Amino acid sequence: MKRSALSLICLVICFLTSACACFTKSNTPTLTSKPALVLMTDFGLKDGAVSAMKGVAYETAPTLVVSDLTHEVPPYNIWEASFRLVQTYRYWPKGTVFVTVVDPGVGSERHSIVMKSKSGHYFVGPDNGLYTLVADESGIEDIRVIDEAKQRLKGSSDSYTFHGRDLYVYVGARLASGQLKFEDAGRSAGQDLIKIPYQKAVADKGTIKGTISVLDPQYGNVWTNIPRELVRATFKDAKNLRVIIRSDSKIVYDKTLPLKDTFAGVGVGQPLLYFNSLLNLSVALNQGDFAKAHKIGSGPKWTVTVTEK
Amino acid sequence: MKRSALSLICLVICFLTSACACFTKSNTPTLTSKPALVLMTDFGLKDGAVSAMKGVAYETAPTLVVSDLTHEVPPYNIWEASFRLVQTYRYWPKGTVFVTVVDPGVGSERHSIVMKSKSGHYFVGPDNGLYTLVADESGIEDIRVIDEAKQRLKGSSDSYTFHGRDLYVYVGARLASGQLKFEDAGRSAGQDLIKIPYQKAVADKGTIKGTISVLDPQYGNVWTNIPRELVRATFKDAKNLRVIIRSDSKIVYDKTLPLKDTFAGVGVGQPLLYFNSLLNLSVALNQGDFAKAHKIGSGPKWTVTVTEK
Amino acid sequence: MKRSALSLICLVICFLTSACACFTKSNTPTLTSKPALVLMTDFGLKDGAVSAMKGVAYETAPTLVVSDLTHEVPPYNIWEASFRLVQTYRYWPKGTVFVTVVDPGVGSERHSIVMKSKSGHYFVGPDNGLYTLVADESGIEDIRVIDEAKQRLKGSSDSYTFHGRDLYVYVGARLASGQLKFEDAGRSAGQDLIKIPYQKAVADKGTIKGTISVLDPQYGNVWTNIPRELVRATFKDAKNLRVIIRSDSKIVYDKTLPLKDTFAGVGVGQPLLYFNSLLNLSVALNQGDFAKAHKIGSGPKWTVTVTEK
Repeated sequence: MKRSALSLICLVICFLTSACACFTKSNTPTLTSKPALVLMTDFGLKDGAVSAMKGVAYETAPTLVVSDLTHEVPPYNIWEASFRLVQTYRYWPKGTVFVTVVDPGVGSERHSIVMKSKSGHYFVGPDNGLYTLVADESGIEDIRVIDEAKQRLKGSSDSYTFHGRDLYVYVGARLASGQLKFEDAGRSAGQDLIKIPYQKAVADKGTIKGTISVLDPQYGNVWTNIPRELVRATFKDAKNLRVIIRSDSKIVYDKTLPLKDTFAGVGVGQPLLYFNSLLNLSVALNQGDFAKAHKIGSGPKWTVTVTEK
Repeated sequence: MKRSALSLICLVICFLTSACACFTKSNTPTLTSKPALVLMTDFGLKDGAVSAMKGVAYETAPTLVVSDLTHEVPPYNIWEASFRLVQTYRYWPKGTVFVTVVDPGVGSERHSIVMKSKSGHYFVGPDNGLYTLVADESGIEDIRVIDEAKQRLKGSSDSYTFHGRDLYVYVGARLASGQLKFEDAGRSAGQDLIKIPYQKAVADKGTIKGTISVLDPQYGNVWTNIPRELVRATFKDAKNLRVIIRSDSKIVYDKTLPLKDTFAGVGVGQPLLYFNSLLNLSVALNQGDFAKAHKIGSGPKWTVTVTEK
Repeated sequence: MKRSALSLICLVICFLTSACACFTKSNTPTLTSKPALVLMTDFGLKDGAVSAMKGVAYETAPTLVVSDLTHEVPPYNIWEASFRLVQTYRYWPKGTVFVTVVDPGVGSERHSIVMKSKSGHYFVGPDNGLYTLVADESGIEDIRVIDEAKQRLKGSSDSYTFHGRDLYVYVGARLASGQLKFEDAGRSAGQDLIKIPYQKAVADKGTIKGTISVLDPQYGNVWTNIPRELVRATFKDAKNLRVIIRSDSKIVYDKTLPLKDTFAGVGVGQPLLYFNSLLNLSVALNQGDFAKAHKIGSGPKWTVTVTEK
């Protein structure tokens, strides 16, 4: 009886095990529930610098997914880099680690940090304003100041000028692969982040003010930081809006434009207002380059004012 | 007896299971027999748009292989995009999903489709001519019209201008990862595809006509759509051929050139005819830029005529 | 008794198997202990050529990690390509396979080789000088001459002009994935490598001579091949050094500059000497473009002389 019971138990276990093993085999395992590592720099891709960073990433964690945000941030343009992050991070899975190197002050006193956003993403790089727009949109969960002496690639302590390779991608790869916990990256700095000042989108007495966040570099569309809801709340169903664009205090553009759902809503070469892919108010020429045509730039010194008349 | 038999069955199953489990363990599993997702756009890489698309891909299917064909298609140049596809798709494994966004008409009435080629590859994007050359070379197995209301990224229904992110890469990632079957992408449109008209390669009475498909952008070589077999069949072993290049009806170039196996077959800076990496007739300067030197362009309005004298 | 023993054995095996299966399941397997495939070409990314190569790689070995070093080597610039390799290879894991295509002589008599460096990395490409700097830094373990008739993509024997796709990436993918052993790639050529001659870094009577290896293309910094140790050994704690830059024998720049740890050590726009990320002596303007300002180039004909006065 006992032996028969044993045999039975054995059989059951066997079947479960078979099932388990077969399940394991037939379903290709979800290899990378591990978060991805996303790189952004102003190094360009003519150089070998980005590939050296990727080598460090794979040396540290061979099975990581490593992806490029862009490496063509204009050299030293921290503002635009900040925008590229806010344009993309929310589309990446929670836990994704962004390693970001736009770092004119490398080797100076600025801190190296890991920021965890309230959205659950991680950002590794210099504390120089790079995370301004993500912090404003998502909120900061916590910031850790990287202990540069401890958290760096072995043998790199003599190199001062390439923190992207020797420090940030190394920390990022360890974080993404679970070898390093966020809490162990260094002391907490709480919410203490260096930010670039700029005109936030605000409405007052029928006028909305905002900033030209960025130019769509391929097509020359002009993107503001004014969200659709604010436009709708302020102007109801207005079909035309007056747009004034200033560089510092100087007026560069002033015209009333139709607000359309799509570029095809106006003729080829005609100007329009629309909500871009981030649902922010934008100015464009249908199949043309608005920024070039009107010599518009972007960044904190470029502001925009919108009224109904 | 019965118990002994049970034990025996049990043992056999156990051994099989062990074998199965060990096999599973020792052979690193072929993780991605899953097809790759290949992206092509005219967005450039200065922007965050491509990375937002990749974020959506990994959010949808974390273990996908995501690769870039090119993001430097000249803005709105559907013809050149069509050529980039025909230049590459056959080198990718069957089942590969190409997500292609060159879409001047985004938000207008044009359809969004998934085309399955007879070669077994999938193409997701707008129905605007992008798939002209792949369809002509491989043939169309079937086309599905994407139901834009159903098959889109959650929360994106308010965005009209970025189908690449909200629709195409989302559908493509679900297709490549097996979450969506081709047949379930939408209603069948059969072979009904929008195509760009162009001069196909034809021979008549010792004259071959064709199109300048594209310029090799790095070296300035001029690639026609005239295949080697047609040249061989028409001109036998001719060592020199007369080439007339026209922009619309205007003659831009007219000369007799040697046909060589390799660039090294003529002196540095000398012109030659050769068969390019797709085995099509091409014109080049050895280590020089033929297109620039003679102001040659490409696309349907650029035609070529080849004769023996 | 015998049956009971059988049952017991059976149970033990079952438990082991369960453990084994569960272990297999819960630990995501280390998929790619397989080495990565790293691509470098002068094709640019506007073209489909690089993507065709990647298609061949994934067709050959679907689970490979495929990464880009750069595809923006200036056309035909073998020297700069050689530098990009030496700048990056040491940061990649041992066993990484670099497929490198800068190949002005494609189709001519030059050999196709696989070089194994003493550092344990593999390099697949034409024997035309591409591996000069890696060979000088790491040393050569062995070189195999690829048998072009055997080791090529099926159906590609009619194509003469695209060895990158038909030969090198195919061999590289088979090598990285373990389908091809280095020893089976072809006959050994020992240490016999084609090299580009250049001025090595040497010190003599208080003067160091060297080459301008490359310009940092994004920032215009000028990188020499003179290592920090040689500078330290020759000039002790010198805080200023005289730098003479020549193009062939013509002096292009001659000035005494401060040697600093970081760019921030001098004012914005000021010149400095520093040790770059490879710990070689370099010349820069803080947040400026030294090479452009003084019309400096790079490569074997650009030499540099450093003295203390």
